[in-house]
Amino acid sequence: MIYFDNAATTGVSPEVLDKMLPFFKERFGNPSSQFYEAGRSAKEALENAREIIAGCLNCDINEVFFTASGSEADNWAVKGAAEAGLAKGKNKIITSAIEHHAVLNTCKYLEKHGYEVVYLPVDENGTVLPQTLKDAVDDKTSIVSIMLANNEIGTIEPIAELAGIAHEAGALFHTDAVQAAGHIETDFKALGVDLLSISGHKFHAPKGVGALITRKGLRLPNLIHGGGQEKGRRAGTENVPYIVGMAYALKFACDNMEENTKKIKAIRDRLISGIEEKIPYVKLNGHREQRLPGNVNFSFKYIEGESLMLWLDMNSVAVSSGSACASGSLDPSHVLLAIGLPHEIAHGSLRLSIGDLNTMEEADKLLEILPPIVEKLRAMSPLYENK
Amino acid sequence: MIYFDNAATTGVSPEVLDKMLPFFKERFGNPSSQFYEAGRSAKEALENAREIIAGCLNCDINEVFFTASGSEADNWAVKGAAEAGLAKGKNKIITSAIEHHAVLNTCKYLEKHGYEVVYLPVDENGTVLPQTLKDAVDDKTSIVSIMLANNEIGTIEPIAELAGIAHEAGALFHTDAVQAAGHIETDFKALGVDLLSISGHKFHAPKGVGALITRKGLRLPNLIHGGGQEKGRRAGTENVPYIVGMAYALKFACDNMEENTKKIKAIRDRLISGIEEKIPYVKLNGHREQRLPGNVNFSFKYIEGESLMLWLDMNSVAVSSGSACASGSLDPSHVLLAIGLPHEIAHGSLRLSIGDLNTMEEADKLLEILPPIVEKLRAMSPLYENK
Repeated sequence: MIYFDNAATTGVSPEVLDKMLPFFKERFGNPSSQFYEAGRSAKEALENAREIIAGCLNCDINEVFFTASGSEADNWAVKGAAEAGLAKGKNKIITSAIEHHAVLNTCKYLEKHGYEVVYLPVDENGTVLPQTLKDAVDDKTSIVSIMLANNEIGTIEPIAELAGIAHEAGALFHTDAVQAAGHIETDFKALGVDLLSISGHKFHAPKGVGALITRKGLRLPNLIHGGGQEKGRRAGTENVPYIVGMAYALKFACDNMEENTKKIKAIRDRLISGIEEKIPYVKLNGHREQRLPGNVNFSFKYIEGESLMLWLDMNSVAVSSGSACASGSLDPSHVLLAIGLPHEIAHGSLRLSIGDLNTMEEADKLLEILPPIVEKLRAMSPLYENK
Repeated sequence: MIYFDNAATTGVSPEVLDKMLPFFKERFGNPSSQFYEAGRSAKEALENAREIIAGCLNCDINEVFFTASGSEADNWAVKGAAEAGLAKGKNKIITSAIEHHAVLNTCKYLEKHGYEVVYLPVDENGTVLPQTLKDAVDDKTSIVSIMLANNEIGTIEPIAELAGIAHEAGALFHTDAVQAAGHIETDFKALGVDLLSISGHKFHAPKGVGALITRKGLRLPNLIHGGGQEKGRRAGTENVPYIVGMAYALKFACDNMEENTKKIKAIRDRLISGIEEKIPYVKLNGHREQRLPGNVNFSFKYIEGESLMLWLDMNSVAVSSGSACASGSLDPSHVLLAIGLPHEIAHGSLRLSIGDLNTMEEADKLLEILPPIVEKLRAMSPLYENK
């Protein structure tokens, strides 16, 4: 199998699994059980993981709060900040039209509960223009949530500048860094944000662990109430194996980022230029420069993305048409519509997301396989005949 | 180490870990990625696990919703039902004074947001008397949440009867079955509840996975919004390895429940009678018959539970003074206060929770170690001198 869907999920690396394994059977204690060694040993691993994560993201140890997913972190950040804002008379939330559904659907829920939500447009590259935020933010705004890098088209947003604008108006700033952490520099202090979400399974840790980095001094209402875990701010017995795994996976990704980025970008650029050269009537979606190293997203006019995926699957190539989280839906991608694609072209889109385990040979193989598939599908398409 | 803290957490069994391992590296696909084999293979495992869980708890496959913890399931049930109730003009929530903090602190949060919460008292055995619910429930009540078995004193509550009373008044009924599932019969249909929470790490699955069983036809607002996972009702990429692990662990626990219960009860009863025979001024907390097979909870007058735990730790025995989730707090257990213990006696309490890996030899060892420790501590206690 050629796996070009690393933005959907990644496998756990052998090194990460090795780090996790002792915490299932031997060091299985509950970190809250401080009156015996098995509990203290688990707690020590938990705090060690917190320190590693803080080091990778350039934040303080006390700013790291573990969650069970990027979605949970996003929900916590947006709902928590919205609720805290409402207590101060602020009922406005600002986000962008191209956020992940973990932010967008949270905002839609809040709209039904007395909050006003502004969905900022993006330009044709998927960039949130700072002026649009300047025009929208005001002293009624509790929280601005804009992602660091888009999961479908890979566009990297000008977060430091956007956060500065939010802060000038007295609003908090959250960034969903789920696609960024471990892949591009994700520096909590340099970005100047108040809240930042990450998810382990995007960088070879398992599915089911994430974190919300929360600026010191900021205390949002809990999303999950209960026991005293995470300083009383996120209840639930800590998932020690996954937290340990996420710390090592993130450290490994950050330590090797320069080298991996070079390799991954080379594969990405080969795929982009290869597709543009070999296949007519295609459009690269997303920003050409301000783009995740591993993201390729193309619209192929006159055909359906689903048919393309099925044919690629028959050739043992795994790709996606957009976000895995939104699959099952027949609607075209909200991200592609937001950058101005008409419905029928948005439907004919494909995301190839490249990881550190991919090779240039796989890219070349795809560039052999894909053009005849596109040609075959177009030959069957009435739209293509009448183009 | 003698580990008598199985109610705090359990280690992952080798068989469960073996079932989980293929899903970290080989079958690592995102279950939402249905256009290629790696995703379909993960989805198949997910649905297979759902079927196993449904079989163990006697509910429908479509009633199982996976979460990342028992706490998340409790929060979802209580907040969701409260919010749905409010939309129908119902602002009252009923729970008991001895619930886990995942329910109690959720209720305290809701009290600050316009809900009225009634905390039912319990009798000296920790039982919620049906008459107290009859007196409290009314047509303003959206949800009643009472645990199936108490985590500190092991008392099993008359849930089927309580659920019937709630339903007569038109209220939903939730039970936190975190300490029950895998240990005593936990039959969703027979209990007649609408919502039931479980947590994997109480029966040899890992920490970080649970489920909320939700009666067909009942659709609560999400706790976590986002992607289309769990039929759009709980967002976040599914933790396939843990879900698979939880299914096998629960099945294993249920398949072997009769045999294990017999063994565990024998150890429990040896500990209870041994402590009562060998140590004066002790009091067994919790119901003598309606009690979890693995629960022993004693108050030792004139001494502190913390000192006891430290001395037992020095003898490589792991126990707890109450709930691990509430550790770090200096307050005496809310459960022991609710059954009528004075503060100073509640402080001198110990929970021994027995699992299937414990042996009668370990119980005998504890019965050798404990009496001289208690005697030594009492000899240092001014309270004991003046008794």
